[in-house]
Amino acid sequence: MTSYAIKAAALAVPERVVTNHDLEQIMDTSDEWIKRRTGIERRHIAVSETNASLATKVAQQLVEQSQMDVQRLDYIIIATMSPDHLTPAVAAEVQGALGATNAVAFDVNAACSGFVYATDVMNSLLAKLPGGTGIVIGSERLSKLVDWHDRSTAVLFGDGAAGVLVTNDGSASQVMGADLKTAGDLGSSLTAGQMVEKTPFGNGNLDARHRFFQMDGHVVYNFATRQAPTSIRRATEQAGLDLSDIKYFVMHQANARIVKRVAQKLDLPDQRFPINITEYGNTAAASEPILLAELINQHQIQRGDYIALTGFGGGLTVGTVIIRY
Amino acid sequence: MTSYAIKAAALAVPERVVTNHDLEQIMDTSDEWIKRRTGIERRHIAVSETNASLATKVAQQLVEQSQMDVQRLDYIIIATMSPDHLTPAVAAEVQGALGATNAVAFDVNAACSGFVYATDVMNSLLAKLPGGTGIVIGSERLSKLVDWHDRSTAVLFGDGAAGVLVTNDGSASQVMGADLKTAGDLGSSLTAGQMVEKTPFGNGNLDARHRFFQMDGHVVYNFATRQAPTSIRRATEQAGLDLSDIKYFVMHQANARIVKRVAQKLDLPDQRFPINITEYGNTAAASEPILLAELINQHQIQRGDYIALTGFGGGLTVGTVIIRY
Repeated sequence: MTSYAIKAAALAVPERVVTNHDLEQIMDTSDEWIKRRTGIERRHIAVSETNASLATKVAQQLVEQSQMDVQRLDYIIIATMSPDHLTPAVAAEVQGALGATNAVAFDVNAACSGFVYATDVMNSLLAKLPGGTGIVIGSERLSKLVDWHDRSTAVLFGDGAAGVLVTNDGSASQVMGADLKTAGDLGSSLTAGQMVEKTPFGNGNLDARHRFFQMDGHVVYNFATRQAPTSIRRATEQAGLDLSDIKYFVMHQANARIVKRVAQKLDLPDQRFPINITEYGNTAAASEPILLAELINQHQIQRGDYIALTGFGGGLTVGTVIIRY
Repeated sequence: MTSYAIKAAALAVPERVVTNHDLEQIMDTSDEWIKRRTGIERRHIAVSETNASLATKVAQQLVEQSQMDVQRLDYIIIATMSPDHLTPAVAAEVQGALGATNAVAFDVNAACSGFVYATDVMNSLLAKLPGGTGIVIGSERLSKLVDWHDRSTAVLFGDGAAGVLVTNDGSASQVMGADLKTAGDLGSSLTAGQMVEKTPFGNGNLDARHRFFQMDGHVVYNFATRQAPTSIRRATEQAGLDLSDIKYFVMHQANARIVKRVAQKLDLPDQRFPINITEYGNTAAASEPILLAELINQHQIQRGDYIALTGFGGGLTVGTVIIRY
């Protein structure tokens, strides 16, 4: 039997907290406007921390909490859209820092759905490896992809990392259903991280603005509020469960209004859709695992509970996995 | 039974060919020196092509060759260390361009081992999906990560994409063995793609040189020539085969001398280690599939043949999969 037992969950965020009031000092915005439109009150922004240093902190906690010999780790997958380098991968840096010499390490990029996609990948890899163990982390340093002169996007994002250590240990804990979708035709509605390029053989694209987040908020809002409910329904059905069986819907924290709209569309009470965007802003691939780690470590999720993890965003991508904890 | 049947293989490279003689015009180097040290005579460099446009060309050929309804595609994985953006992923762009609306698309980054790592991931995903179909492509536009003023690295790299369309169709074609390793402790010996960053809250790392390839060639050479033979031996053993059973060892084309040294260490004739670096330079994750596609489309690989695919490079990473074609 393929189990997917979460042995530990952890998060790490930068020390520096930037409040909406701090942002008022550097751009024409207001705490009230940001809160009302997004639910965000503050976010953590990296100063000395790197993507890899945040992810490594998470991995170290995971290993410590689960009292795991690092040599037993088979895989380390980092979901990220803001790696420190294009090579080495963040996962390789974490593997090196951890001394997990037997772990195969690579990054997965599916933007804000990255943690959900990486969960499906890890589940598939461990399915072939009874007793196998892996670490899946969503880790982002989005602050470097933010145009701090663009008040429409700058207020939205934060930095952070979180993840889980899982084993295929034969227990009843498992991924019960997974429904992932990609809509590449809508990809241009949310972009970031284009590299300016110039070679002796052609100038490529020299428009540096595209390094930063550019978003057609309307398209993304419509996509999320239509596709996330569908994704949740399909994954739940695939798991052989009803929506009423799911204890918590751990959704990507892009905007509190999207989370509430999805709950409404599914005709479910808000309380089953926890929100922590207040504290962290949108941390892309890190957002679902930050919330998941908080719920697990506060004992709000217990063995046997069914949890839906839903991501959506850049790609565009959407995805839900149903986990029996 | 989990099969991994390659139904089609294809490649796409930029139109513009840059010879060693062309490079002599813009830097202090010589055709003779480059050829002797690396085996490279020319490479293809993107002018108007993007990573996604090259990968899309490959995907379109794969679909056409296999006469596959694009709606049947379940997964599209792109192995890359040089995406056009950090979001959307290259895979999402390819999925959108292809109209493969049922395909889940994401990128994997394990640098020059990316195609081998992605093959292991795709094989695991399809194992759960009898009849499932996927596209795995290695695609790179490395020219934007090259410091064209640094003759020690600028002569080495090229742009290109290639991949395969595979199905879990119950046939005897399959991945027989896979041995992947990561050595993150050596990651700093091969780096590229650091993004210069500056936020109102800290300057991060402003050293723009690190955007470009920086390599300790000695460390990478030693790693490759020690680890690649070990990886090949282990994967072959895992497959229940002898080295003598393997028709071709399709190795990452980083340097012709590395390929020859690995053949020598395994006590195998050079002819079983095909080399095409002459034409393309080092194309990172695209290099093994470019060579694989050439061998398949020239009918040098036939049904029932055993093939080893070996990648090594940034991370550092190394990996071998043994495929029964």
